[in-house]
Amino acid sequence: MPARSLEELLQQTDSTVAMLRNSQLGAYVYPVVAPEFSNWRTEQLAWQQTAVLYDQTHHMDSLVVTGPDARKLFSDTAINSLENFPVNKAKQYVPTTPAGHVIGDGILFHHGDDEYVYVGRSPAVNWLLFHAETGGYNVHVELDRRSPSRPMGRPVTRKFWRFQIQGPNAWAIIEKLNGKPLEKLKFFTMGTMNVGAREVRTLRHGMAGAPGVEIWGPYESYDDVRDEIIEQGAEFGLLPVGARAYPSNTLESGWIPSPLPAIYTGDELLSYRQWLGADSYEATNAVAGSFVSDNIADYYLNPWELGYGAFVKFDHDFIGRDALEQIDPAAQRRKVTLAWNADDLGRILTSVLDTGRLPYKYFDLPLANYGSSNYDTVLDGDGNVVGLSMFTGYSANERRGLSLATIDPSIPDGAELTVVWGEPDGGTGKPTVEKHRQTTVRAVVSPAPYSAVAREHYRSGWRTGYKD
Amino acid sequence: MPARSLEELLQQTDSTVAMLRNSQLGAYVYPVVAPEFSNWRTEQLAWQQTAVLYDQTHHMDSLVVTGPDARKLFSDTAINSLENFPVNKAKQYVPTTPAGHVIGDGILFHHGDDEYVYVGRSPAVNWLLFHAETGGYNVHVELDRRSPSRPMGRPVTRKFWRFQIQGPNAWAIIEKLNGKPLEKLKFFTMGTMNVGAREVRTLRHGMAGAPGVEIWGPYESYDDVRDEIIEQGAEFGLLPVGARAYPSNTLESGWIPSPLPAIYTGDELLSYRQWLGADSYEATNAVAGSFVSDNIADYYLNPWELGYGAFVKFDHDFIGRDALEQIDPAAQRRKVTLAWNADDLGRILTSVLDTGRLPYKYFDLPLANYGSSNYDTVLDGDGNVVGLSMFTGYSANERRGLSLATIDPSIPDGAELTVVWGEPDGGTGKPTVEKHRQTTVRAVVSPAPYSAVAREHYRSGWRTGYKD
Repeated sequence: MPARSLEELLQQTDSTVAMLRNSQLGAYVYPVVAPEFSNWRTEQLAWQQTAVLYDQTHHMDSLVVTGPDARKLFSDTAINSLENFPVNKAKQYVPTTPAGHVIGDGILFHHGDDEYVYVGRSPAVNWLLFHAETGGYNVHVELDRRSPSRPMGRPVTRKFWRFQIQGPNAWAIIEKLNGKPLEKLKFFTMGTMNVGAREVRTLRHGMAGAPGVEIWGPYESYDDVRDEIIEQGAEFGLLPVGARAYPSNTLESGWIPSPLPAIYTGDELLSYRQWLGADSYEATNAVAGSFVSDNIADYYLNPWELGYGAFVKFDHDFIGRDALEQIDPAAQRRKVTLAWNADDLGRILTSVLDTGRLPYKYFDLPLANYGSSNYDTVLDGDGNVVGLSMFTGYSANERRGLSLATIDPSIPDGAELTVVWGEPDGGTGKPTVEKHRQTTVRAVVSPAPYSAVAREHYRSGWRTGYKD
Repeated sequence: MPARSLEELLQQTDSTVAMLRNSQLGAYVYPVVAPEFSNWRTEQLAWQQTAVLYDQTHHMDSLVVTGPDARKLFSDTAINSLENFPVNKAKQYVPTTPAGHVIGDGILFHHGDDEYVYVGRSPAVNWLLFHAETGGYNVHVELDRRSPSRPMGRPVTRKFWRFQIQGPNAWAIIEKLNGKPLEKLKFFTMGTMNVGAREVRTLRHGMAGAPGVEIWGPYESYDDVRDEIIEQGAEFGLLPVGARAYPSNTLESGWIPSPLPAIYTGDELLSYRQWLGADSYEATNAVAGSFVSDNIADYYLNPWELGYGAFVKFDHDFIGRDALEQIDPAAQRRKVTLAWNADDLGRILTSVLDTGRLPYKYFDLPLANYGSSNYDTVLDGDGNVVGLSMFTGYSANERRGLSLATIDPSIPDGAELTVVWGEPDGGTGKPTVEKHRQTTVRAVVSPAPYSAVAREHYRSGWRTGYKD
């Protein structure tokens, strides 16, 4: 009988790891938005040099939660404190399992009295839905799933559009659109602005020190607002960013979008796994990369390992609190950027031309990920596994391959580590995987977000290995 | 006043070449179909090793011409003979200008008595529409333009879907779908087959010697037919081919899809240019590449230069006949495949990692074209321009960069030539062009279609230059 829940699916499989590593889902894409409007190199350069329009309308779930218990639902499930979280503030919400592992993360907007909107990948949304449904909360939820990955000409509609205007010229464009000066609110504070005749809500955002905004509104006005921004932004060099370049921006900004939701094990999560459908994100998502363990729990990460240690606040009760209280923050892996060695990445890029041997795993530019969650083994000079490389691609701004990783805390910035690129044994059965050979890539430990300081400081010592 | 026609646009511009080389159209994409279903490497390998479903539903115009003068309309405009062209045959239709230059080409289906369907890029369709409208023909035309390049979630519908089932296992799949053996008709002969409970029309096709079919039907049945083929084909390794891999198949099969329509000059074509809108393909298409001439006519090609010499039949009157009768076929450039030197292409692929200098023009895999029509200069060892390289990309089957070119007839297969890659002076203003440096690439003259014979015969002599 076909499985009806994630739990039934897990009961039918010998190995959760093998199931996810051989998912038939296909590439985890940034859907509906055109791949390129100009070209991905120019679009990447624009977010550092002029201005860009990010279109975040289609790739995330959005969940509106209203009612007297809305705040409690989020507070009970968040490592974050919801004290000092008034209307018109937003924060990066991170829920953990009872064992203290991250389920997912995304942005929580405090839209109004007893009204919150969560925007992000499905795992945290599913977790919220489950607790809203089963936890006795007096809330109303309104779910808008991300758009289909391959619409193939079928109409796509959403409840809301969501854009960001970012880059060094962003504020000039924002004020031009607004028709008058606009107060630069604090980061992650909400306000309003005008776009043409329309007032829209704003979230103060920013990239690389330059102020920007995120804005949203009803999907009916998508075309009007988008056209207006592109038209008004043109004189400031604003470019719309397509689906190829967009997800690579995080390589520079340092957010890891794709930890595996840590919900496949643990008796406390049995009812959740029974609640999750056999077609849920959790049941169908694809794990990619060189890191292979028999134990799915080896793919789980705690908040410190993803750079969210500062969000953990024991001022409230929340799922996972007891486990997190046992953790020594100083002993946890830390989030870094790995700057890939140019010669080694060059070997990978040119291996497609090797007629004598199987090429290495194809490194697509600008995004080289080939699963929903990406786990590549990171080794030190002695061949010890010292970390996981979790989001990989290329930046035309840096002219470098970069990946976001979590590594042992004893390893300093500037150290040289090794990333194992490609899957063992010729590769798994994922549709995204062509037969290939594994190889290793030297990479220099650098800050996340990757910074000019790191670039300049470490370039001269590019091949200086890290020694104990 | 904004131009209303191509002719008015040309009157307002100093240079037709500069206008087209700086088109703001963006990439000429294969629209609506998802970029990848599995991944482009595996999809390319499947068409050589197992079987593929090509989805040709969205990227071509289709024009139904009916009425007593339908045959005459095609015959008057074709270099091809329409003698011996009964119902249920198809042919590659090639119209030329009065000066004998190619306007475009595509497939002409003789659907029924006085009923023809032409499928291809816009230039030949526009030419047919113009003559149908102005030439006193007793015909009815029904036009279905190609789908929008960037639908962004808007619904897309067409009159017909159009698929091909190709590859070494194609016929087994075709007969399974048909439910019984199917006669292998002659190449480009039409018949019928069953797909599930549905009878569909077929065009006998083939790739690399393996028989296949093209099929078509009303768009309402698109999903049903597609799903049925994918389901039934799975056991034979059939993969649907996405928008990234699809257009690269011609690198192996040797068809140049994108000559510039030769209609920008000549008094005889004035009324046509006045008829063509300022938003027509001809007015908006982008010319890309290293070949730059002040004279737009230097981009024109005659049938022999594109490999269509054998189609020229002087058994009928047609536009361009007088000019073509003056041509010495033996003196014309010939169509070849250029096999790009791996070291030189490797330099291009790795130049994205060069932090010290501007990279070369980005070579996207598997398709490296960056315009509607692509014209790269081909040089001999003495630096003479001896040809044009017109469609460029990469084949995972060959593990080579390949381009389709037309070169001087005195240059034999096996000769080494040089392709100039990238535009001069840092590049034009096309959105597809990032700032870049030019470079040169050695390339071995090989047959079109590129063949195993060529691969094996010339590999040992890879660097053997061509000498006069």
